[in-house]
Amino acid sequence: MAGVIFAVILAGGGGERFWPVSSKERPKQFLSLIGEQTMLQQTVGRLAGFVDPRDTYVITARGYGSLVNEQVPEVPAANVIEEPCGRDTAAAVGLAAAYLAHRDPEGVMAVLPADHYIADTARFRRVLETAVETAQSGEWLVTLGITPTRPETGYGYVQRGEVLRTVGSLAVYRALRFTEKPDGMKARRFLASGKYFWNSGIFIWRVKVIRRLLEEHLPELARGLAQIGGAIGTEKEADAIASVYPSLPRISIDYGVMERARNVLVLPADFGWDDVGTWPAWARYSGRQDGQGNVIEGAGVLLESSGCVVRASNHVVAALGVRDLVIVEEDGRLLVCAKERAQEIKRLVAALKEAGYNDAV
Amino acid sequence: MAGVIFAVILAGGGGERFWPVSSKERPKQFLSLIGEQTMLQQTVGRLAGFVDPRDTYVITARGYGSLVNEQVPEVPAANVIEEPCGRDTAAAVGLAAAYLAHRDPEGVMAVLPADHYIADTARFRRVLETAVETAQSGEWLVTLGITPTRPETGYGYVQRGEVLRTVGSLAVYRALRFTEKPDGMKARRFLASGKYFWNSGIFIWRVKVIRRLLEEHLPELARGLAQIGGAIGTEKEADAIASVYPSLPRISIDYGVMERARNVLVLPADFGWDDVGTWPAWARYSGRQDGQGNVIEGAGVLLESSGCVVRASNHVVAALGVRDLVIVEEDGRLLVCAKERAQEIKRLVAALKEAGYNDAV
Repeated sequence: MAGVIFAVILAGGGGERFWPVSSKERPKQFLSLIGEQTMLQQTVGRLAGFVDPRDTYVITARGYGSLVNEQVPEVPAANVIEEPCGRDTAAAVGLAAAYLAHRDPEGVMAVLPADHYIADTARFRRVLETAVETAQSGEWLVTLGITPTRPETGYGYVQRGEVLRTVGSLAVYRALRFTEKPDGMKARRFLASGKYFWNSGIFIWRVKVIRRLLEEHLPELARGLAQIGGAIGTEKEADAIASVYPSLPRISIDYGVMERARNVLVLPADFGWDDVGTWPAWARYSGRQDGQGNVIEGAGVLLESSGCVVRASNHVVAALGVRDLVIVEEDGRLLVCAKERAQEIKRLVAALKEAGYNDAV
Repeated sequence: MAGVIFAVILAGGGGERFWPVSSKERPKQFLSLIGEQTMLQQTVGRLAGFVDPRDTYVITARGYGSLVNEQVPEVPAANVIEEPCGRDTAAAVGLAAAYLAHRDPEGVMAVLPADHYIADTARFRRVLETAVETAQSGEWLVTLGITPTRPETGYGYVQRGEVLRTVGSLAVYRALRFTEKPDGMKARRFLASGKYFWNSGIFIWRVKVIRRLLEEHLPELARGLAQIGGAIGTEKEADAIASVYPSLPRISIDYGVMERARNVLVLPADFGWDDVGTWPAWARYSGRQDGQGNVIEGAGVLLESSGCVVRASNHVVAALGVRDLVIVEEDGRLLVCAKERAQEIKRLVAALKEAGYNDAV
């Protein structure tokens, strides 16, 4: 008996880079950015037939539980866990693992960000199944690696080592090293070497394995989680989370565990992946293209303009003589941003708050 | 007895360069672009106490008569004349003169565009009074000239000659030559010479003088106007305008008369004038300035952006890392335009029509 297969969906992000479509009322994972379903719905949906919704857990931020219940009613409300505050991914993963340990410590958990785009669901399922089988077979931390296509400095990189085994066309590599967000020179070297993957943020491991590694590498975190774990299923559960969780160390699972662990494997995630981190990334999968490198969703005309990303919900947009802009209109809010600076939109949201436009963020 | 002083306000423009605030339902002259009154209301209002509203006539385009009545109810409805179609300014002025000839051929008419900004109303009045007195004193065509501040190629220029007389601090010059829209080199030479004015489009002359000059220089136009004139005040008036006016030659009063006439005078119009032809021109008189050369009217934040003109009616605008853009949001329509191309917005309106967005123009 191989143990339960759990899915842990991380749905805690603020998604401010998708302002003005995203907002504090509705962060990115709760939006239908690509296709008709929201990103959370797509994340749950692509597990259908492989992970039972009753074995699916969603970790989200305070206040978003009811939105999760509304969007994925097939996931039991008891499996939707609100963090009282964000403490980064090691705490979120550890909190989920504490719950799962009550269910089946021998089980495998697949950690999945709620806001990524995956093009080929069938291939994703095949890779995930192989990753789960691999995790079940030993003490491995399995991660899915994306073949890089550009010297991106915003992602983590995983250096691959020898092939441990192959399953069908899929090679399972040992992972030699994690490097979070390298500088441009390093990123170019990684890309050129052909031996690095991007870290997808998708992890697969047995519940007891990750719990032991959290104890080993992040003992303070593990102590806090043990306190919470002891209260799970009792009337003290909510209080324990509320009082302990905010004091947990704030560290990512990458820094806290993956960089330090030795038994890490990486599988090439060749299923068409994108973290859709910015409006220009969104434009790769959306809207209509014109002959000038513009992408338009909604009503509008772009005259002698090029390289623009336009999304209009209610307005008719007309542009003349502009280049490489992101123009997004939604619900009384309008963004105009240099495309190369689309990853800085968070700063704009902060500036709006500071200027007193609290209703607009 | 010096004759009646008439005002003829030309309010026929389409004002498409102020899209999306202007529209076919409400061209520029009917908008409150600067201040609370509409440009038409300001044009009529600054004549108060000098020209009786009953002696004020408004020439507008077909369908806009009721808007004129609504905005300047002090002007009698009978003085609001709709052109069946636009035939340029010689026809519009001639049509007005035909009406005025029935009232008082010895009278003086001041021709005033409905959509210009004038900063100093008191000074404007003094200049206009001097122009009217000058026109009353002989056979003169009087025009008001603006001292140029840049080598603008979009305006007409008037070369001044000798001083004919001075009234207080105001010199009355003979005009030597009209030049419509010179090329850049010519415009720079005109500017450097110090002997040229911009043509303001404000003209003052006796009714009978302009009618005689229309006969002399534009006989075909004069014949058509004579047909219409014969019907004015009879039951055939509307029919005569509808049938004759569309066949009149399409020519401006500048080309048709001013360039050819010899008895032209020009008065320096030193009252702070702007034809407010584009959004960047509008920004010289509106909104709030920040330290980066942006002008903002409405709610918004511009971060690391410079030289932009922003006007938002309903939306909160947030911009990041953009330069020299015009961003205007109004009533479900959004403009984003390179500032240097703001005079081409008409083309954008045409493109919207062509793309089928007829409700947006």
